[in-house]
Amino acid sequence: MHIQSQHFRSIWQQANAVYIIDQTRLPFDFVTVELTSLAQICHAIRHMQVRGAPLIGAAAAYGVALGIQQDASDEHLQAVVKQLIATRPTAVNLAWAAQRMQQTLMPLAVAQRAAAAWLAAQAIADEDVAQNLAIGQHGKALIAEKATVDANQAVNILTHCNAGWLATVDGGTALAPIYAAHDAGLKVHVWVDETRPRNQGASLTAWELAQHGVPHTVIADNAGGHLMQHGQVDLVIVGADRVTSQGDVCNKIGTYLKALAAFDQQIPFYAAVPTPTIDWQIARGAEIEIEMRDADEVAYMQGQTATGDIQTVRVIPRESPALNPAFDVTPARLVTGVITEHGVFAPDQLHALKTHSLGD
Amino acid sequence: MHIQSQHFRSIWQQANAVYIIDQTRLPFDFVTVELTSLAQICHAIRHMQVRGAPLIGAAAAYGVALGIQQDASDEHLQAVVKQLIATRPTAVNLAWAAQRMQQTLMPLAVAQRAAAAWLAAQAIADEDVAQNLAIGQHGKALIAEKATVDANQAVNILTHCNAGWLATVDGGTALAPIYAAHDAGLKVHVWVDETRPRNQGASLTAWELAQHGVPHTVIADNAGGHLMQHGQVDLVIVGADRVTSQGDVCNKIGTYLKALAAFDQQIPFYAAVPTPTIDWQIARGAEIEIEMRDADEVAYMQGQTATGDIQTVRVIPRESPALNPAFDVTPARLVTGVITEHGVFAPDQLHALKTHSLGD
Repeated sequence: MHIQSQHFRSIWQQANAVYIIDQTRLPFDFVTVELTSLAQICHAIRHMQVRGAPLIGAAAAYGVALGIQQDASDEHLQAVVKQLIATRPTAVNLAWAAQRMQQTLMPLAVAQRAAAAWLAAQAIADEDVAQNLAIGQHGKALIAEKATVDANQAVNILTHCNAGWLATVDGGTALAPIYAAHDAGLKVHVWVDETRPRNQGASLTAWELAQHGVPHTVIADNAGGHLMQHGQVDLVIVGADRVTSQGDVCNKIGTYLKALAAFDQQIPFYAAVPTPTIDWQIARGAEIEIEMRDADEVAYMQGQTATGDIQTVRVIPRESPALNPAFDVTPARLVTGVITEHGVFAPDQLHALKTHSLGD
Repeated sequence: MHIQSQHFRSIWQQANAVYIIDQTRLPFDFVTVELTSLAQICHAIRHMQVRGAPLIGAAAAYGVALGIQQDASDEHLQAVVKQLIATRPTAVNLAWAAQRMQQTLMPLAVAQRAAAAWLAAQAIADEDVAQNLAIGQHGKALIAEKATVDANQAVNILTHCNAGWLATVDGGTALAPIYAAHDAGLKVHVWVDETRPRNQGASLTAWELAQHGVPHTVIADNAGGHLMQHGQVDLVIVGADRVTSQGDVCNKIGTYLKALAAFDQQIPFYAAVPTPTIDWQIARGAEIEIEMRDADEVAYMQGQTATGDIQTVRVIPRESPALNPAFDVTPARLVTGVITEHGVFAPDQLHALKTHSLGD
């Protein structure tokens, strides 16, 4: 998507180096970082300079390529993959991408692997972009339906967290339909939940929408229900970390509250995900174990001071503990549909995708 | 309630001075301020060193007392009342308290007014405390019911914003039942919503619970629904800025989302208010105009740096606008009951209070 009218991906290769946008510096500083070693890629993943499941996957793929440029032996390739997976052990896409690189490269002669690795990493990145563009086209149709009511009125879409292009290689998942609609000339306006405690909405979603020129407004996570009560929201689109086979949506903490309000106000609620995010092993979302993250994410906030410095401040009393569940599960009964690269499916029709994805 | 084991009210008089806790310095600095003039009281109200409807009312009453110590003439008394009301024109309790002072003092001889004003202000403060203690006793019974299930397990109560003793003269409204239960030896634990954007939960509710020794945990506003899904919340108690005659509850933005989750998970949801907060003129909460506050409250956060300074930081991109609705309305269908000084009433039974309060 666009940064100051120039096209960017969130990760790209040039010669023997990989480039990323340092997302820990956003939204106040736009800094790209050149990575020329496996150690630098691991650092970038571990310190969340890159984040978002699809982007982490691509970063791992590029990490394998960087890691085997000097030594592409079986032993070293396997060590590189192992080292990458250890950076964020619970990231499913990371392990998937690193292992796919290994499966692609192992059958090749050692001398061919260094060059082939760049192509294989590029393929993983390109597939992500293609999936997201398809999600965008299917989701755009839902926005266009709302636009027909009054073409001069912007369609108001509420989103939570960041499932934008910064979380993917390009295009985004939840934001893909919004970019597709905007680029096609439809009037859209996005309500951006700030998404406490890590503020991915306020810092990343708002930034990327601003850079691409999409009208948007940041709101406290508390405000969405009120806006829905007052006809200010036409649809809700969120991403998801996992969708179960029955359509329960596991996404950033607070999603369930927005889904409840959308249901109460009869506003369509969609999750936008590539089909690999659907977990056919689990039916009931209640079975998903929810990660408890560091309480300091609730206790501290980071932002920019008047003099331009980035400062971290404590926002709760020293004496008070905090709890930080990272995700919640929105039951399928509150979900209007799941937007995938193969189309939009009601939760009880998701099974059609199972055959589809097995046939892929 | 207690601060470091010592009993405090949020406002008190001694000799010819009024004392307050500077709430803008909480939770990191506990500072009391001596106010000896009308100008100082007006400054404290305007700059939210005192806030919360009942406390503002008491502050206005004490302000009248301070303001007429040198000149208690009709003309000056009326000017003092007018000046106080202008500090926060939309604060209903402020106008009510200042006008009640005027009505009490005007019939008296001018020479008697200065002394009588202290007594009249004290009476307003004491009435608030008495009301809150009664709310506490009625609400405590609801907590005790939950405790009987397993006396060794803490009863988990979720609250939003600050309707604690800091918002009143003493005792609090939503927190009154919690203090009453805790002081009676019942095991309670409070989930404190941080309450973005102004963070009254994280900065004031957490602080006052910590000072009084009530177990509590601060959570992001996004987390409450997840905790309710997982049986971690036994009841929800919030304050209210206004309750309509049919039981719609107008309270801090985000309350509606928590009420939806409580309803969805069959968890009792209560508003705790003194009966003057019930507005018999309005039935439907949707008719209440919601104040839009400064977007900078969303765009900036205040906290304490590692070196102990209080710092304000920007948390959204410079290019992004924000919107800041201050309140929302929870429809009566989601409200289990209203806890008042006269008892607990289901929304459709509130009318019984109307006769009661008219007879008061």
